[in-house]
Amino acid sequence: MKTITPEHEQYLITIAGYIDHTNLKPDATAGDILRLCDEAAGYGFAAVCINPVFVPLAAERLKGTGVKVCTVAGFPLGANTPEIKASEARKAILDGAAEVDMVIHIGALKDGQDILVEKDISGVVAAVREAGREAGGEAGREGIVKGIVKVIIETCLLTDSEKDRACLIAQKAGAHFIKTSTGLSLAGATLEDVHIMKSTVGQTMKIKAAGGIRTAAQALEFIKAGAARIGTSSGVSIMKELEQWQ
Amino acid sequence: MKTITPEHEQYLITIAGYIDHTNLKPDATAGDILRLCDEAAGYGFAAVCINPVFVPLAAERLKGTGVKVCTVAGFPLGANTPEIKASEARKAILDGAAEVDMVIHIGALKDGQDILVEKDISGVVAAVREAGREAGGEAGREGIVKGIVKVIIETCLLTDSEKDRACLIAQKAGAHFIKTSTGLSLAGATLEDVHIMKSTVGQTMKIKAAGGIRTAAQALEFIKAGAARIGTSSGVSIMKELEQWQ
Repeated sequence: MKTITPEHEQYLITIAGYIDHTNLKPDATAGDILRLCDEAAGYGFAAVCINPVFVPLAAERLKGTGVKVCTVAGFPLGANTPEIKASEARKAILDGAAEVDMVIHIGALKDGQDILVEKDISGVVAAVREAGREAGGEAGREGIVKGIVKVIIETCLLTDSEKDRACLIAQKAGAHFIKTSTGLSLAGATLEDVHIMKSTVGQTMKIKAAGGIRTAAQALEFIKAGAARIGTSSGVSIMKELEQWQ
Repeated sequence: MKTITPEHEQYLITIAGYIDHTNLKPDATAGDILRLCDEAAGYGFAAVCINPVFVPLAAERLKGTGVKVCTVAGFPLGANTPEIKASEARKAILDGAAEVDMVIHIGALKDGQDILVEKDISGVVAAVREAGREAGGEAGREGIVKGIVKVIIETCLLTDSEKDRACLIAQKAGAHFIKTSTGLSLAGATLEDVHIMKSTVGQTMKIKAAGGIRTAAQALEFIKAGAARIGTSSGVSIMKELEQWQ
């Protein structure tokens, strides 16, 4: 076994801080989610990204670890109503999530209904903010007051000009992150998409690259391109690769 | 052009009555949904199956045609909370849907949490019934009072004994249909799955086969096996095939 130097350990900690450790599988069990949480705590990942039904379980398991609970709203199709997306986001925060990854209504974007797309996002942003204030009073929920909304635009279904428009709408709606993909559509994140996001809204929004990122080399490329978060279900194997790299 | 005999026309009308004409694509536009509605009305399909955001549009377009609006809840992952699934179902009915296709929480089924799975379903059944009563008072909404709930068990992720259990739970929860698949997971409907459903709950529940059904031959096989509905995005091409068959 190799010994890890302090410098390499610091490097590993830094990279781990980029990772949203993800299990959004429809057949994930409570045991799968607990294991995901323990792995995230062990490596010091930024968050676990899980389906809404498991938020209370994960929040309990991760208490005191510094790992946040991230969940999804309107996922993965984005074509449910704004009221339901906002309700999902509100409930997620009250259940213990600190971050909500929502999917835009892609058809409305394609129809040029930019105001509808913006309202859909700003409804979730407002729900997260309000629920965060309510939850903020409880012990140990300080971090929640600054709840984060990531807006998934599903780049593989959009033209480049639609990607630009989606980024600008999400920015206007007050979201914190722009995110490439659900990981469940035709394709995942590309470096080109991250470049577009960076040049369009990179001054004011952070970027999450997700979908198809399975190796350390890929993760590092996306981080270099400007991603502040990497959504992946391969966090553990990525870290194991990096441990060998010194 | 062939002339269609009265007998063949009656046959076409009968088969059309089995079809849930489906467009659940995340990037479907309003134009796509209107076209779907017009096709459904033209052929006399049982219903259109669309995402929740388009329910009001489809309900308006289909008024007076006899074609029902079907939408989805907890779709396609099934891993959002029971409260949100019930809210989605309630809103769908109030927006003009007559049928709601919900996805079970598959992980809970695998964890042996049968009571949770049942409550998740019965919450949707109750929401549909109550919203149906509220909506029933409005002009032209008579059909809604008998709102239908179809329970998607995503057979491709289940063992045969899990399929049996899921069917029995859905029956106990008071749902009307058992449905094979979302069409968005690893595989779609199989004849074997329909046989299992038929033998387990076929006396009390109807069966909807969905996922991967694209030809007239397939549709007829599933109907012969006992499916009362076929969920497909290929309704028009299936009907065109059948028109040629006389």
